[in-house]
Amino acid sequence: MNVNVTDAIAPLREEEVLPQIAETELARWIALSRVPGLGCVNFKKLAEYFGDPTEAFSAPAEALVKIQGLDPNVINGLRHFSAWTEMEVEVGRAEKAAIKIVPFTDPTYPARLRLIADPPPVLYVKGEIRNQDEKAVAVVGSRSASEYGRRVARDLCRGLASLGFTVVSGMARGIDGAAHEAALNAGGRTLAVLGSGVDRAYPPEHDKLYRRISENGAVISEFPLGTGPVPFNFPVRNRLISGLSLGVVVVEATEKSGSLITASLALEQGREVFAVPGEAGASRSRGTHQLIRQGARLVETVNDIMEEVAPQLSARAQTAENAPGRALPQHLGDECHKIFALFRERALQIDEVIESSGCSPSRVSEILLELELLGYIKQLPGKKYRLED
Amino acid sequence: MNVNVTDAIAPLREEEVLPQIAETELARWIALSRVPGLGCVNFKKLAEYFGDPTEAFSAPAEALVKIQGLDPNVINGLRHFSAWTEMEVEVGRAEKAAIKIVPFTDPTYPARLRLIADPPPVLYVKGEIRNQDEKAVAVVGSRSASEYGRRVARDLCRGLASLGFTVVSGMARGIDGAAHEAALNAGGRTLAVLGSGVDRAYPPEHDKLYRRISENGAVISEFPLGTGPVPFNFPVRNRLISGLSLGVVVVEATEKSGSLITASLALEQGREVFAVPGEAGASRSRGTHQLIRQGARLVETVNDIMEEVAPQLSARAQTAENAPGRALPQHLGDECHKIFALFRERALQIDEVIESSGCSPSRVSEILLELELLGYIKQLPGKKYRLED
Repeated sequence: MNVNVTDAIAPLREEEVLPQIAETELARWIALSRVPGLGCVNFKKLAEYFGDPTEAFSAPAEALVKIQGLDPNVINGLRHFSAWTEMEVEVGRAEKAAIKIVPFTDPTYPARLRLIADPPPVLYVKGEIRNQDEKAVAVVGSRSASEYGRRVARDLCRGLASLGFTVVSGMARGIDGAAHEAALNAGGRTLAVLGSGVDRAYPPEHDKLYRRISENGAVISEFPLGTGPVPFNFPVRNRLISGLSLGVVVVEATEKSGSLITASLALEQGREVFAVPGEAGASRSRGTHQLIRQGARLVETVNDIMEEVAPQLSARAQTAENAPGRALPQHLGDECHKIFALFRERALQIDEVIESSGCSPSRVSEILLELELLGYIKQLPGKKYRLED
Repeated sequence: MNVNVTDAIAPLREEEVLPQIAETELARWIALSRVPGLGCVNFKKLAEYFGDPTEAFSAPAEALVKIQGLDPNVINGLRHFSAWTEMEVEVGRAEKAAIKIVPFTDPTYPARLRLIADPPPVLYVKGEIRNQDEKAVAVVGSRSASEYGRRVARDLCRGLASLGFTVVSGMARGIDGAAHEAALNAGGRTLAVLGSGVDRAYPPEHDKLYRRISENGAVISEFPLGTGPVPFNFPVRNRLISGLSLGVVVVEATEKSGSLITASLALEQGREVFAVPGEAGASRSRGTHQLIRQGARLVETVNDIMEEVAPQLSARAQTAENAPGRALPQHLGDECHKIFALFRERALQIDEVIESSGCSPSRVSEILLELELLGYIKQLPGKKYRLED
């Protein structure tokens, strides 16, 4: 069951492949987030090159060298990664704490998050991410919120929940906490993305909220279990808040608020940015006013959010409605049409798609992701895909 | 001194020209705003065709027919206008009330207002319009303003006044009144544009404000003396509020506020539109939030206004700085350069410019206006122009 650690330290010979059992596979996935120099951008390159990015650990150097922009240090880091025992311990620890480790290629890994430029190789999940959580809007804001800000956050989240949206936030004091609570109180789902490990509630006074969220949604982090609330981690996790969401609503933010980071990441990711106005001169609205000046949509009610978000959803719903016999839109291109046609007969594994289509593995990954997000195909466990019902 | 009324009623023979004395001239100008069917858009066509639009009353029909888009009814109206006595009475009445009648071609007629598509032929002015009033910003808003709205209006207008800007508004209850008062209290200038005659304060409780404004600025209207506060006139006068200003700030506005009309007129006139935010759900901020969503700039402090307005002013100041020996920018075109060159020797009357340049009267009017607004030439009494100092 265990990886042979000595073998892993020694330079791999090409014919050597690490054992492919479930637990070990998770360990290899976690390892992808620990290889020195291998950040999430490089990880995405591996994910686009290999159907299964953990193959990078056993891939011949000649293969790795072919991946554009991959630093030689990263290749060395991959080939000499040695902390396998630590990875195994982490897998066991998560299991005991009822925390799921969800790899990038897992069907429950949020499809929208897969699209960003720097997706984490694994997510630690306390609770459950469901398909319906793809219909998500983030609501974030100042930790030192005003009563006005909390009220607007509550009103918006109640509205979002009643329309079947999952509310994403950061579980921080102030606006974030109010957002999660309002969604839960309205019987909705909510996802909390932490800048620390998911095995502990942070901030501590949100312990009860943490439990409620894990029962009606999920607490999520890319950081190893036991990671403390290091300030540096918070801006990093903000990209997941926006990455999980169709749009980000900033309710209140001072001029140097972390919420402004979330907003600018959202823009980079092509997600909508919304900001709630306040009175001129109100310090807690200075950040949201700045966002509005920069082009964020001014939002007062949930309807203002829907005006921007609904068209995206209805486009998806329209394509999904006439599945499975329906035609792909022309603009998707020949490769996309060719690959889609392969699924007409049966479900296929990614390797089969690569072989039958003659396209590169990275191109196939891209196309499958696009088809999945458009609602044409559905990912099954084991990197298998089938037509969406 | 009096126009021969019977002659004026009878079809004019071409050689007949009405006497050209000052009072009569003003009567002819007022008449231009009373000819049935001759609105301000048609008036501007006359102003572009004739150096002196009052010539339209004595122009041969063949000349009038050449003016593009001028309806035959208007031509008849011009040629059969008969209410000369009434016009003379109006001139006398204004004189008694110390109200100036400022024709379109008068040097004190605001140059920026001349640019709009539908400038009034005459302005009734209680007080004084100065050159410095070209540097103007309008601040308008709801009659049923909140204390918050009044406070923001006061803060903005105090700031504008301290920066040497003239505050333009509509002297209505609420935001307008607060705007004028704050400008006056800060020792600044202010212009009030009424939807009724300038001989009476409207609303009546602003009588004291009316007097203060006329002493440190001007109360302005295009409507005849004695015109009551007819609701229909208010949206019409709003185009003058924006037309006089570099930009319009809407402080508070409900969804159906007249201030939204002013804002959309400002946009049509190519003027900046600013809107002050308020709390989400505040009924008096619904209009301003709507404007912001439509692209109006969110404004909290006078600095936010300056960011948009200052570049316009500095462009003008730059061109004015190196007068009179400086070169015109290339992009202004050959005709413009030719006409500008004529002024190097001496001041010229518009007719001289037309003759020397060989350009059409309407083109000459256009170019002179452009040169004046860019700060290259200055208009003197009697349709004369000279190089700007």
